[in-house]
Amino acid sequence: MNDFSHLDETGKVSMVDVTDKMPTCREALAEGAVFLAPETLAAIQDAALPKGDVLTTAKIAGVMAAKRTAELIPMCHPLNISFVDVRFSLQNDRILISATAKTREATGVEMEALTAVSVAALTIYDMCKSADKTMRISDIRLVRKTGGKSSHKTTYR
Amino acid sequence: MNDFSHLDETGKVSMVDVTDKMPTCREALAEGAVFLAPETLAAIQDAALPKGDVLTTAKIAGVMAAKRTAELIPMCHPLNISFVDVRFSLQNDRILISATAKTREATGVEMEALTAVSVAALTIYDMCKSADKTMRISDIRLVRKTGGKSSHKTTYR
Amino acid sequence: MNDFSHLDETGKVSMVDVTDKMPTCREALAEGAVFLAPETLAAIQDAALPKGDVLTTAKIAGVMAAKRTAELIPMCHPLNISFVDVRFSLQNDRILISATAKTREATGVEMEALTAVSVAALTIYDMCKSADKTMRISDIRLVRKTGGKSSHKTTYR
Amino acid sequence: MNDFSHLDETGKVSMVDVTDKMPTCREALAEGAVFLAPETLAAIQDAALPKGDVLTTAKIAGVMAAKRTAELIPMCHPLNISFVDVRFSLQNDRILISATAKTREATGVEMEALTAVSVAALTIYDMCKSADKTMRISDIRLVRKTGGKSSHKTTYR
Amino acid sequence: MNDFSHLDETGKVSMVDVTDKMPTCREALAEGAVFLAPETLAAIQDAALPKGDVLTTAKIAGVMAAKRTAELIPMCHPLNISFVDVRFSLQNDRILISATAKTREATGVEMEALTAVSVAALTIYDMCKSADKTMRISDIRLVRKTGGKSSHKTTYR
Amino acid sequence: MNDFSHLDETGKVSMVDVTDKMPTCREALAEGAVFLAPETLAAIQDAALPKGDVLTTAKIAGVMAAKRTAELIPMCHPLNISFVDVRFSLQNDRILISATAKTREATGVEMEALTAVSVAALTIYDMCKSADKTMRISDIRLVRKTGGKSSHKTTYR
Repeated sequence: MNDFSHLDETGKVSMVDVTDKMPTCREALAEGAVFLAPETLAAIQDAALPKGDVLTTAKIAGVMAAKRTAELIPMCHPLNISFVDVRFSLQNDRILISATAKTREATGVEMEALTAVSVAALTIYDMCKSADKTMRISDIRLVRKTGGKSSHKTTYR
Repeated sequence: MNDFSHLDETGKVSMVDVTDKMPTCREALAEGAVFLAPETLAAIQDAALPKGDVLTTAKIAGVMAAKRTAELIPMCHPLNISFVDVRFSLQNDRILISATAKTREATGVEMEALTAVSVAALTIYDMCKSADKTMRISDIRLVRKTGGKSSHKTTYR
Repeated sequence: MNDFSHLDETGKVSMVDVTDKMPTCREALAEGAVFLAPETLAAIQDAALPKGDVLTTAKIAGVMAAKRTAELIPMCHPLNISFVDVRFSLQNDRILISATAKTREATGVEMEALTAVSVAALTIYDMCKSADKTMRISDIRLVRKTGGKSSHKTTYR
Repeated sequence: MNDFSHLDETGKVSMVDVTDKMPTCREALAEGAVFLAPETLAAIQDAALPKGDVLTTAKIAGVMAAKRTAELIPMCHPLNISFVDVRFSLQNDRILISATAKTREATGVEMEALTAVSVAALTIYDMCKSADKTMRISDIRLVRKTGGKSSHKTTYR
Repeated sequence: MNDFSHLDETGKVSMVDVTDKMPTCREALAEGAVFLAPETLAAIQDAALPKGDVLTTAKIAGVMAAKRTAELIPMCHPLNISFVDVRFSLQNDRILISATAKTREATGVEMEALTAVSVAALTIYDMCKSADKTMRISDIRLVRKTGGKSSHKTTYR
Repeated sequence: MNDFSHLDETGKVSMVDVTDKMPTCREALAEGAVFLAPETLAAIQDAALPKGDVLTTAKIAGVMAAKRTAELIPMCHPLNISFVDVRFSLQNDRILISATAKTREATGVEMEALTAVSVAALTIYDMCKSADKTMRISDIRLVRKTGGKSSHKTTYR
């Protein structure tokens, strides 16, 4: 026996069987950041510049990607998310991205929240890459997860 | 006029028109890392454990995602990549991921390489998340890009 | 507060949270029309011509698109439709298209029915465009919706 | 022989063989409209309301759908569009939508432009449907097409 | 009335309405085989050769395709599988493929299991086609199906 | 060195780099069969029954799947097919399926033709499975391939 739920007893990759898991209300919060040059951030913050469009585009991309997580991550179960949201916070040297995903199905939505953050970050990268050659996407991680086994709440680090 | 090629003159999000760009051989190299607990890395390195399957699954996920980049990133041009590869290097506290993408079309493949790294990282996260609550995906960035305008080579940072 | 459920309190686009909505039997009926030149319609009605294939192709395209509505419409919730059907009625100057969609999930299927009509119409356009330069897709609208909040029935106009 | 290029000599649905067609620069312009209640339009035009987000979301949805036209329309050839744009014009009783698509491949991009208009219209519908029960999507049609056989320009009605 | 559930009373293709069917635990087992040249099989069995990677890639492809069955098969209902697995058994002249699919929704998962087998077989074909020109995919069929109407078990031939 | 082009020198799965391959006109012909009970075939042949719809649906499914081959088969290169067709021939105990695919790109279209046959077969299975519990999909193989390296023609067995 091992701790890797996606590997069977012989070590082969394998989907977890969730047929007998209870559908409960599940929620996950993930975060990440895109580090940018100060001038890029200033331009995005500048009212004269289309901040809304960069971040709105990134938000929509993150939401749409979250809905297709199971197409991207091989062993993820398909599930119908009941809510996903992506929010941004502009800081000194980075754009913080946080994504919340919810479902009422039998598997957690960590990967959905993490996928929303990742694709929103990639979209910011794409939108700004002609202006900034120093960007870096970092610190993508799960922050909190509720629901599941015992409707418990797990806080990550 | 601004430096954001994906925003038009009124600041609205807009795809770049590449109708008149020359198809040339283009290549991009991106990198990133998944930071894990020492025990998780040890388990992955342990011959008794299915290292191959975790990383093979992540590689396949990265390759397949690279092919669908334009479905995920709103302003990306669809293009047929001629090659994409994802490689891993296990280090003290992280798995380094590098992805190469190539095409002979009229737009660069930076986003394809970055998407391959991101989805490979998410897949490692998914495969190990039952065993490790400390994982973090970081330092996703473009390393090198060749081809395009003047077949020049750009090194990032 | 505003009436736009897909916009949050600051006016940003946002998915509706349906985590706490009850799954009930929901149904929607949408209609639309493709206006064509009389000769095109005559050709389609002519037994010698492959009426079946034009409309069968359009029906299949509409059904398949309905299943993927949440991939196309950014703020639509993914849901598993339990039924979708597309029917056609040939009239003097148009092909009337009607689509019914059903589900037992927590959100309505209006967009699924409207997407089925739209893609069926686009497919008729594609199938006939070499023969008819006058086509126009019009009057796509929701006709009726049942289920949801109070299992009430709403008739549109 | 018939005028329906997507039907073979026995009347069966069939993709056109474009293997021997020349890749040339091709462009298509399509239009359509969403008719709304005056109050909905007023709300969208009101600076206090998030006009940008409704239309930005619709634009992104239209652009992304155009890239996937060949997945939706059964007999459409897959092609890599080099440009697609969706623009809106608010009028008395409607939002006019126009979409331009371009490619350098061997088939026209009419269906890509029409798909962009249709999915942008459906997205406006989705964004406003909680506030307006009278909406109608109409007058989707091809306006102009250039390139192809003789690099000629065809104006539709 | 006819026995073809996907055809309506006039003989037109039509999705089955499962709105009123009970969600129950459903399972299907399908099998198939790829016949190969003895040298190809020997190479795959040879410890020196990357057996794992050929079969791991085929397994992942089968699992991912099963999740998208309703996108491929026009009249299939979308459903969220709770488990899918693909296994291989190397024999004298063939690789036997078996796939199990499970769900707790209102429709059976036969097509999901059959799609997993088919796409795993196509992937083996793709991985070996440079080395073997004699391959043949055969004997894809449903072996067993449980759940549904009366939670009965049907064995196929 | 090995004969498996999709495996690198260390035996890891890897996409073939076709960046430097010449785009030429390439074509592939694949075949396969669905074996059915005599009564099912008789019903499909019976003019009173909707033969057209079963086979038209299967044809459309095969054509649409061929366009998405690179999404299904992990190491397949994305390519824009210039033509794909699926044809059927009803025989004593089976429906023969043949599919032709063409492209002008740098990689062959064998997998596209084989995918078209496989998904058309699965669709026939789905359409007839309520009436026939004995179906079997068999003998899917490549028949002929032209174009590529030396524009040569290879006949398979």
